[in-house]
Amino acid sequence: MLTRPDVAVVGAGPVGLAIAWRCAARGLRVVVHDPAPGSGASHVAAGMLSPVAEAYFGEHELTALLADSAARWPAFAAELAEAAGVGFGHRTEGTLVVGLTGDDLAEARRLWSYQRGLGLPITPLRPSKLRDREPALAPRVRGGAVAAGDHQVDPRRLVAALRVAAERAGATLVPDAVARLSDLDAGVTVVAAGCGAAALTGLPVRPVKGQVLRLRAPGRGAPGFRHVIRGYADGESVYLVPRDTGEVVVGATVEERADTEVTAGAVLRLLRAAVDLVPELAEYDLVEASAGLRPGTPDNAPILGPLPGRPGVLAATGHHRHGIVLTPVTADLIAQLIVTGEADPLLAPFTPDRFVAEEERTWN
Amino acid sequence: MLTRPDVAVVGAGPVGLAIAWRCAARGLRVVVHDPAPGSGASHVAAGMLSPVAEAYFGEHELTALLADSAARWPAFAAELAEAAGVGFGHRTEGTLVVGLTGDDLAEARRLWSYQRGLGLPITPLRPSKLRDREPALAPRVRGGAVAAGDHQVDPRRLVAALRVAAERAGATLVPDAVARLSDLDAGVTVVAAGCGAAALTGLPVRPVKGQVLRLRAPGRGAPGFRHVIRGYADGESVYLVPRDTGEVVVGATVEERADTEVTAGAVLRLLRAAVDLVPELAEYDLVEASAGLRPGTPDNAPILGPLPGRPGVLAATGHHRHGIVLTPVTADLIAQLIVTGEADPLLAPFTPDRFVAEEERTWN
Repeated sequence: MLTRPDVAVVGAGPVGLAIAWRCAARGLRVVVHDPAPGSGASHVAAGMLSPVAEAYFGEHELTALLADSAARWPAFAAELAEAAGVGFGHRTEGTLVVGLTGDDLAEARRLWSYQRGLGLPITPLRPSKLRDREPALAPRVRGGAVAAGDHQVDPRRLVAALRVAAERAGATLVPDAVARLSDLDAGVTVVAAGCGAAALTGLPVRPVKGQVLRLRAPGRGAPGFRHVIRGYADGESVYLVPRDTGEVVVGATVEERADTEVTAGAVLRLLRAAVDLVPELAEYDLVEASAGLRPGTPDNAPILGPLPGRPGVLAATGHHRHGIVLTPVTADLIAQLIVTGEADPLLAPFTPDRFVAEEERTWN
Repeated sequence: MLTRPDVAVVGAGPVGLAIAWRCAARGLRVVVHDPAPGSGASHVAAGMLSPVAEAYFGEHELTALLADSAARWPAFAAELAEAAGVGFGHRTEGTLVVGLTGDDLAEARRLWSYQRGLGLPITPLRPSKLRDREPALAPRVRGGAVAAGDHQVDPRRLVAALRVAAERAGATLVPDAVARLSDLDAGVTVVAAGCGAAALTGLPVRPVKGQVLRLRAPGRGAPGFRHVIRGYADGESVYLVPRDTGEVVVGATVEERADTEVTAGAVLRLLRAAVDLVPELAEYDLVEASAGLRPGTPDNAPILGPLPGRPGVLAATGHHRHGIVLTPVTADLIAQLIVTGEADPLLAPFTPDRFVAEEERTWN
């Protein structure tokens, strides 16, 4: 670099690359540091854009942010496709939420009743209607609902597209690992390093292991279903994400562990639930079993904004299970904060100081 | 090669390499042709030396050959260890045959009653005795038997050891693929090419697909059980082969297919049976899922001896599920045939002319 960059981004996952793209597009000099772009949580992620099906009890502010970001996705996708000139598997068939047994259906219904109570668009379907939409569902699936606005994207292709867009906009990728933020010299530093943010900032970001399978339809045709299917099957929660390429992502475990081993028990549980819900998956090839580490936080919500006591350092991490859906809103608001200095009110519940303040309350 | 070899072996799997070793050790000039030694069925095989547990109804002659070869294994192993100077996981703890449910146990008992009727050494055990031997077995395992003489070896390490032994004895490995036997110029040609024998010889060798998993005990310790476990679990037949290295091989499907894809359904069935029989396997890492092609024959028995109408060509193929256990007897008898010209009476039921003759009966 001949000149000091305006923005240094640590981490070339979707969040870091999208921030870099947005900043570079606004004329800032941007450098992104990552020894292995796209090798973090996004490499394993399924890419569901599910503000509705991910709206859980007591997470109102997060639900609002998910809904806001999901609403930004269509325009974000169109803009990115234009800027990068490559596709990234954005599909809008919607999501079916289904229950295998009566107990599973009761569990699913409890959640979607809550989601409907929030005014979110999820519509119960009679079993016959469910099967009209997806004949591949097992006959014994007891019932379900459709969240027509819960879409999907392919995270690996998304990273590739964002990288092209960021570089075309003038951002520079540097394949080095950042050990200390003080090693960087830039107007603003953005820590978008996923789980790596903990060591760099002291923020309470912890790894949450997820094991995921990738199947492939026989003969490399398209999978025999088109909706994302989120199912409860004998007490297991599983999702099935079909891609145009023939791939079906089956996920995911949620484990408070920091290793990335694939275990026999997790593969067994995922496959059993998947095949119980969509029997034809038994005939699919198993092409990949992998594990990734989501950046989890104490309240399951991301950490977005200025780091207290560290002028010029912004956090954009802690996206946990929601990094892909939250990429547009994160990129827009962080870029806006950098360019204008003004924090959008949407950021308020998610700023880093919520954890610092808590610590002060505890220790002072 | 400056001089015409006495013996050309096509195929550097365990059978081909053991024949090469035996012939070279007797002073013959031996060349082994294989573009990828040890990449065939042996790469996926579990390596059970199970003449007893593999004795099936109506396969008397094969059972006798299996028993003969298994009896040769201890001396063969000692000699190979001496010649190669490396280990290959030869373990002699024996095999437990178990049934998970009452129906599974009835199925297992039907087979071991037959095996006992043949005078084979298999001893029923009370459930308490079974668990004394292997506390890792699930409490719901209904019963079983022990075949103390059914041992195991690690096929991948076996191939490596045989290769060293063959080369130390003077054999030469050439990494080329043999398209036609007429391309070879040697005193005797031995076709030990597994499934590849069909194209080279016209013999009725067909691929029988087997899918196999490799697990690894957590923390890289030894597995929590020491016997080979052959189980029937809710109608699935599965084996679990523990290695000193921490590896546990879980196998295997038997499919009349020629592809080597790993399918979701097969992995599900293998894992379910494995975890039902030995629950702690759920905590093991899943490190490999692979598929290989066994060289099957119309009568499930190997094809050993002179090829009719092709002077100087011997077959040593069609070992199906039994290539590892049959390696010593195959190598001994084929080497003897080459060196002395005399066919051991043991070979009589397995010579290639049984298929040629059958064809003649059909068409003349």
